[in-house]
Amino acid sequence: MTVDDYLEQHRGAHLEELFSLLRIPSVSTDPAHRGDVAQAAEFVAERLRALGFDTEIAPTAGHPIVYAERLDAPAGAPTVLIYGHYDVQPPDPLDEWRNPPFEPTLENGNIVARGATDDKGQMYCHIKGAEAVLAATGGLPVNVKFLIEGEEEVGSPNLEPFLRANKDRLSADAVVISDTSMYGPGRPAITWGLRGLAYVEVHVRGPSHDLHSGLYGGGVRNPINALAAMIATLHDEHGRVAIPGFYDAVLPLSDEERAETAALGHDEDAFRAEVGVSVSPGEEGYSVLERISARPTLDCNGIWGGFTGAGAKTVLPAQAHAKLSCRLVPDQSPAQIVALLRAHFAAVCPSGVTVEVEDHHGGIPFLVDRGAPALGAARRALGRVWGVEPVMIRGGGSIPIVASFKSVLGLDSVLMGFGLADDRLHSPNEKFGLDNYYAGIRASAYMLEELARG
Amino acid sequence: MTVDDYLEQHRGAHLEELFSLLRIPSVSTDPAHRGDVAQAAEFVAERLRALGFDTEIAPTAGHPIVYAERLDAPAGAPTVLIYGHYDVQPPDPLDEWRNPPFEPTLENGNIVARGATDDKGQMYCHIKGAEAVLAATGGLPVNVKFLIEGEEEVGSPNLEPFLRANKDRLSADAVVISDTSMYGPGRPAITWGLRGLAYVEVHVRGPSHDLHSGLYGGGVRNPINALAAMIATLHDEHGRVAIPGFYDAVLPLSDEERAETAALGHDEDAFRAEVGVSVSPGEEGYSVLERISARPTLDCNGIWGGFTGAGAKTVLPAQAHAKLSCRLVPDQSPAQIVALLRAHFAAVCPSGVTVEVEDHHGGIPFLVDRGAPALGAARRALGRVWGVEPVMIRGGGSIPIVASFKSVLGLDSVLMGFGLADDRLHSPNEKFGLDNYYAGIRASAYMLEELARG
Repeated sequence: MTVDDYLEQHRGAHLEELFSLLRIPSVSTDPAHRGDVAQAAEFVAERLRALGFDTEIAPTAGHPIVYAERLDAPAGAPTVLIYGHYDVQPPDPLDEWRNPPFEPTLENGNIVARGATDDKGQMYCHIKGAEAVLAATGGLPVNVKFLIEGEEEVGSPNLEPFLRANKDRLSADAVVISDTSMYGPGRPAITWGLRGLAYVEVHVRGPSHDLHSGLYGGGVRNPINALAAMIATLHDEHGRVAIPGFYDAVLPLSDEERAETAALGHDEDAFRAEVGVSVSPGEEGYSVLERISARPTLDCNGIWGGFTGAGAKTVLPAQAHAKLSCRLVPDQSPAQIVALLRAHFAAVCPSGVTVEVEDHHGGIPFLVDRGAPALGAARRALGRVWGVEPVMIRGGGSIPIVASFKSVLGLDSVLMGFGLADDRLHSPNEKFGLDNYYAGIRASAYMLEELARG
Repeated sequence: MTVDDYLEQHRGAHLEELFSLLRIPSVSTDPAHRGDVAQAAEFVAERLRALGFDTEIAPTAGHPIVYAERLDAPAGAPTVLIYGHYDVQPPDPLDEWRNPPFEPTLENGNIVARGATDDKGQMYCHIKGAEAVLAATGGLPVNVKFLIEGEEEVGSPNLEPFLRANKDRLSADAVVISDTSMYGPGRPAITWGLRGLAYVEVHVRGPSHDLHSGLYGGGVRNPINALAAMIATLHDEHGRVAIPGFYDAVLPLSDEERAETAALGHDEDAFRAEVGVSVSPGEEGYSVLERISARPTLDCNGIWGGFTGAGAKTVLPAQAHAKLSCRLVPDQSPAQIVALLRAHFAAVCPSGVTVEVEDHHGGIPFLVDRGAPALGAARRALGRVWGVEPVMIRGGGSIPIVASFKSVLGLDSVLMGFGLADDRLHSPNEKFGLDNYYAGIRASAYMLEELARG
């Protein structure tokens, strides 16, 4: 029986298994879901044990890491380390979901649920891919190590320590990660670059307690107005981030890369239609595709202060808060950007209030070595599944640990994504195309074969 | 038995009664408390019936109005209409209360509870004042009408219609209201002016759904950043409101009034210490007291958007919202200011988002006729209680219906407040001095006597 035959026969079972995993609300940022996160780890470990992998659920200071290895490949075969994560983003705003986020449903050929594509669905493709190869050939052509964590959505605070503590055990020839997107439907891609992240929370404090805006308004600096004024200084009229020094470490885009990017024929009208906007302003001088993947940004992710309930409350609040983050590109560093943010807020903070910039977590931006051998195997595998040569793209998101794999284990990562950019990652009604799920499983199986060919 | 004897004997009972009223969470802006608001109306009506007042609980489109009258004064005696409100502000933020907001407690001689001073405590002074005169003399020296509403904290939408529908029944020689503050401890005051209010909610909408800030950041206008940028345009570097035309209708302060205000010797250091700030910036060229009572303002009362929970969520939100309000002075009008706000937000709204300005409610600013006869009676009553001549001040808050009493009933209002500016109205741990509660009851009783003297 071939890999394809096996996969054809098990489509139903593979969908049901993924649904079971998606039903577990493993929201890593919310302490209330700690038990669910642990249950998701157990689910993943159980599936790997069933495939004959030597499997362990390694506890950490936070959520556990599932590590599994099967090293019985033919002598001289390479070793691949497959990384993924079983934790998910919070589902809110809940009222925008057509169905409950943790009750997966099929809608027009899409699996709809929190985590469908980020990253439970894509991660599970590799477990099912290995299963298919084992079922078809009785063994694996390369040594395979799975490293599935539960803290990717909170910045993987405990993964790098785990890498350092297990350097030898994790040794491999390459890392493979499926936590990115294809370039488009039917257009497979290798993501050779990702943006980094600097995430901070800003706390503005004024009076010692909430005040009546009638009795005190005019005599006290309003923390919300002050916060808004400070946020307004973060961009200039050209759409550039106006924090002094923000662009100092940014590597300029080469003419070659700009040409390669332009050749992708990114459809900006389609982008606007999908997002639901009529215009898409941003940093002047760059295309939308460059702005969302290869240029640094600053976005407010949340803001709150004062009275936010129904009706009108005439309060002059004591505090106002915001969460904001910067997407970074080589060679910016999260620590350096947070330091610049701190200095900037301190410099623009008006009298009558204080400002505190709290560092949440960051990720280092990276560009992978385009000549890495495993890259060839991945491209061949994707080409076999989709029948077209995959394109090389940069992703706008962050997978901080890719940098850790390079710095700690000295390994390049191959990012082969099976999802689509409009899969609504981190948004209500997140989805993963059923066809891409099945194609992803095949691509994973083929990749193991191609890696063996070297 | 004199009024003073009676009050001395009933201190305990009068405190217990007020506590019972304060235990009713009559939050008028919150539909969940509709039943509690009705219960507070019933409580007030019951106490007035017990004093022989012809009492009715008049239903409205919103919360009911309690109307009670006792018109058996000697022939030729004047008629006073006493206004107050039994509804209260929402208690949040709840975690800043030392005790639950609706479980009144005595702390260092202060009654601490939501509504203690605004306005349950001060309103109740008049019910107990009338009770004392009745107990001491067997009747009332003037005709008394009580008008106690349950929607003051939401802009009294149904009071003016009630005034129009009951013009004859509400006819009187003067309106007396105790919903303001004394100038300071032991320094009684008549408030001859109040600020108006224009309150709006601003809705900024961008993409049709929340987006991943990595995959879309840089390609889409961020609604939070856009809202902050718009709010930042509302003030200039001199602390003035920068909305074109905002000051056009403002009556300048006369030299006489500025001198009278300066003579009050307002302690700005004490103000800052009480509020908990080291500096109190605002509109340049005016004292803090002028800025908080006689000059117009603009304050954000609330702001929210994106992810506001614990942890870090890298979302580029679809919407951002803010509540903001302006305190107005003669001759600004709420409708005119809301129109200016609408025009300004439309003018400064950046591309890629839309802005909607929703009008919540407003109040007309006013200055009362300082020669009004009832003003003399009130001043004499306050002088008898505190042993000093009350000062004339302007209040920074709004009592929209004072303007309605003038426009609909043609009546001037006498604002005699028994609370203090630092009673934390609308804030956690709202308080009302026990001595001021008892003094307020006496002042109300004396005022009825002084009104009879003409």
